[in-house]
Amino acid sequence: MNKTIQEIEASFLEFVNKMSSYNEALGLIYWDLRTGAPKKGMEQRSEVIGVLSSEVFAMSTSEEMGLYIEQLSDEKVQDELSEITRKTVEDCKKQYDRNMKVPANEYREYVILQSQAETIWEEAKEVSDFEMFRPYLEKLVAFNKKFISYWGYDGNPYNTLLDMYEPGVTVEMIDKVFGQLRENIVPLVKEIAENGERPETDFLFKHFPMESQEKFSHFVLEEMGFDFEAGRLDTTVHPFATGLNPGDVRVTTKYDENDFRTAVFGTIHEGGHALYEQNISKSLIGTPLCDGTSMGIHESQSLFWENFVGRHKGFWMKNFEKLKSSNPGQFDGLTLDEYYRAINESKPSLIRIEADELTYPLHIMIRYEIEKGLFNDEIEVKDLPTVWNEKMQEYLGVVPANDGEGVLQDVHWAGGSFGYFPSYALGYMYAAQIKQAMMQDFPNYDEMIAEGKLIEIKQWLTENIHKYGKLKKPLEILKDVTGEELNAEHLISYLNNKYRDVYRLS
Amino acid sequence: MNKTIQEIEASFLEFVNKMSSYNEALGLIYWDLRTGAPKKGMEQRSEVIGVLSSEVFAMSTSEEMGLYIEQLSDEKVQDELSEITRKTVEDCKKQYDRNMKVPANEYREYVILQSQAETIWEEAKEVSDFEMFRPYLEKLVAFNKKFISYWGYDGNPYNTLLDMYEPGVTVEMIDKVFGQLRENIVPLVKEIAENGERPETDFLFKHFPMESQEKFSHFVLEEMGFDFEAGRLDTTVHPFATGLNPGDVRVTTKYDENDFRTAVFGTIHEGGHALYEQNISKSLIGTPLCDGTSMGIHESQSLFWENFVGRHKGFWMKNFEKLKSSNPGQFDGLTLDEYYRAINESKPSLIRIEADELTYPLHIMIRYEIEKGLFNDEIEVKDLPTVWNEKMQEYLGVVPANDGEGVLQDVHWAGGSFGYFPSYALGYMYAAQIKQAMMQDFPNYDEMIAEGKLIEIKQWLTENIHKYGKLKKPLEILKDVTGEELNAEHLISYLNNKYRDVYRLS
Repeated sequence: MNKTIQEIEASFLEFVNKMSSYNEALGLIYWDLRTGAPKKGMEQRSEVIGVLSSEVFAMSTSEEMGLYIEQLSDEKVQDELSEITRKTVEDCKKQYDRNMKVPANEYREYVILQSQAETIWEEAKEVSDFEMFRPYLEKLVAFNKKFISYWGYDGNPYNTLLDMYEPGVTVEMIDKVFGQLRENIVPLVKEIAENGERPETDFLFKHFPMESQEKFSHFVLEEMGFDFEAGRLDTTVHPFATGLNPGDVRVTTKYDENDFRTAVFGTIHEGGHALYEQNISKSLIGTPLCDGTSMGIHESQSLFWENFVGRHKGFWMKNFEKLKSSNPGQFDGLTLDEYYRAINESKPSLIRIEADELTYPLHIMIRYEIEKGLFNDEIEVKDLPTVWNEKMQEYLGVVPANDGEGVLQDVHWAGGSFGYFPSYALGYMYAAQIKQAMMQDFPNYDEMIAEGKLIEIKQWLTENIHKYGKLKKPLEILKDVTGEELNAEHLISYLNNKYRDVYRLS
Repeated sequence: MNKTIQEIEASFLEFVNKMSSYNEALGLIYWDLRTGAPKKGMEQRSEVIGVLSSEVFAMSTSEEMGLYIEQLSDEKVQDELSEITRKTVEDCKKQYDRNMKVPANEYREYVILQSQAETIWEEAKEVSDFEMFRPYLEKLVAFNKKFISYWGYDGNPYNTLLDMYEPGVTVEMIDKVFGQLRENIVPLVKEIAENGERPETDFLFKHFPMESQEKFSHFVLEEMGFDFEAGRLDTTVHPFATGLNPGDVRVTTKYDENDFRTAVFGTIHEGGHALYEQNISKSLIGTPLCDGTSMGIHESQSLFWENFVGRHKGFWMKNFEKLKSSNPGQFDGLTLDEYYRAINESKPSLIRIEADELTYPLHIMIRYEIEKGLFNDEIEVKDLPTVWNEKMQEYLGVVPANDGEGVLQDVHWAGGSFGYFPSYALGYMYAAQIKQAMMQDFPNYDEMIAEGKLIEIKQWLTENIHKYGKLKKPLEILKDVTGEELNAEHLISYLNNKYRDVYRLS
């Protein structure tokens, strides 16, 4: 007897729930590894990760999955399925198609290469030797080109890579907005360097005991509306946030006793990611839709909180006294304005992850242009150090003394992640555009921040973005929330206004 | 083409490695739930536990497992298999046979009953209402009787239950040793109550700040040879130790600011379990043999450290000054002897988990006699409160005011764990017998403790017990280590000597 479509739907949802459960277990294992797992257990823990990940991969490409997709993608049954099932099928189909098109032996080879490349990259970065890393990077690029040939592409081969991180976004769109950003930011950065009035920043580097920093991070998360009954805050080396499920979202941060900004802005940033994960609709639990919809939208949430809340003058009108009292003596005689200008200092620098909010997008553009060149056969791997340094000079006016602080600085390429970088800058533009839309509902946004009404901001983001999880695509969310397509103007005008003010330019 | 026996062996080991990996993930999840997982994520985490446990159970009773067992149990191939494979097959076969003999629907019903019973038990204990819990306990006992009829038994139906926790131990053996214990401990307890010189104990209940207790717990674990690169120490409500793998063994403890003994002896106890798990041979990783060989042998390790090290006068000759200095003012004017006698105070009490080392075995005997009576149709569930109170009067001379602090105090029966309790007292006897054997190699045992040479003790236990994991059966270890069968005399003579000294009896 044939199964009814409802029976097939039910067993499909059970199947994806099993995959979600394995992924949740993996999420906990990764969190644990990065927050204090004993080092001697790590080798065996990798084995556990291998077993669970292989199982998830095997399920995602199994005959059973293939059959579910076939049966549930049929146009005739669409009306009988819930929206959640339809979108889950769509999501699984995308993974399935991608994974099935790559021959198993090539994929296996690629996974091994990734892991070797990351090890070699670490050494190469350490000794600033690009040549050591070059053959691995060449192979990684070659593999990805071959994968693109299996997967096919629309318009530009690089679009296929972008689609993995930011579905719907194309080279054409990015070229346009990055072009606008470049035209506006590069001259602004130059003007600041030449005519800007630099803030005093010495006081940023005094001694801030870890305990008081920890309390302040905790306080800031509370203020943002982070639910500590549905999450926790821990310490790590490279901060991250992870949503195991909406009731268990973990923020990690790092305390630098000589620079309080690391923890404060790091916590706010990761807290922004965490709020997204905590507020996804519970109806999506157990499906792949219970996740941020894209890297870019996720980053829009962390950057919204970090830049439009945490670096906003109003936030410190509310909290500067609190910061002062938790760090007695550290900020004596400092005015709010001096403090505000200092934490918003901007200057061209070599390292992306240490860049300020004005120069950060330039770091991303350099990476984007290199990736696009590689996958359009316009740049060769062997020329990367030269290309890198030329672009640094052109965009930021600084050149690395060696490849360790230059082309080798990021891990992404060693892991085979091409197409990922643009999502950082896209997220930033999304955030500025979302803020513009929010101001329609909250015309007194600046006062709200100064009054500490952050919960209302969280609620607005939940209603408009968070709750949907992956039910909506990134550009669909952007359009629904802001009423327009991707538009770089909002970020440009924000940066112009803010940095002209900070640097006392007319 | 038929597979060679080596190929079958290899794929069997891969199969059990997968089960071990799932179990390790489950172990981490349980640890996390009990050390700070956010409460709102727990419902979904239970789902993850359900998925992973079902998978492990399904694998352990799968056709694939059945085939491996059949092929690898064949006498003709035994010589071709490694010892680890042979014993792994044996272990898997035991589980397989047990699980396959119970009809799936009955097992499912039983699992649901267990979970309901635990919930009801909690309420019933809270309001001290045995009648509320009775119907569930009756069903649990009935199920276990039915399971025994499926599994069969040798000598006494209760032996089949004992075998789950302490393979090889029988009612006959326990009756004998518990009889000896009873004959000696009951009169000793009485003599102490009548003629003993009670130690002063007020100073045990002053104020001990958590931070200094935490440091002391850490220090004690270091002294014992606990490897902090292969483990960690955390805080919890009901302390436990868990070995995720030998390189990742986690101790948990509880700090009572009004009674420092909770953490000190709790940490030493769990540290004893942890040393066992840290020192199992690495060659057993990925198999079910990478575990303590039985509940009783595990408990022998925790009790060895807690009682024969932690409550030993030599241990405090070495560490009393350290304890004093970490708790300034708390022990002023106290001599070592006064301190030693206080921490070894013994008096009959109602609650097993709060009992001292002398009266503890009596609590276990009561539970053993009741379980044995239930499964030999000599006691009925409805009579348990009466039987309980009578036995408390007989053995300990105290009677609970209600069932909450009486027959309902332990969770074990609500979880269907019958046959588990005896292993606590067996572990205690094993420990005393092991200590006797150790003194052949270390005739100056008392001085060693006083000199803090605990690493040598750890090494001796590793060489003789820990490293074998489940390669040896519990009674096999006992025989190999001590040269004799289970013998209650060692524990009896230890308790006699110690408590006559503490209570100044001739």
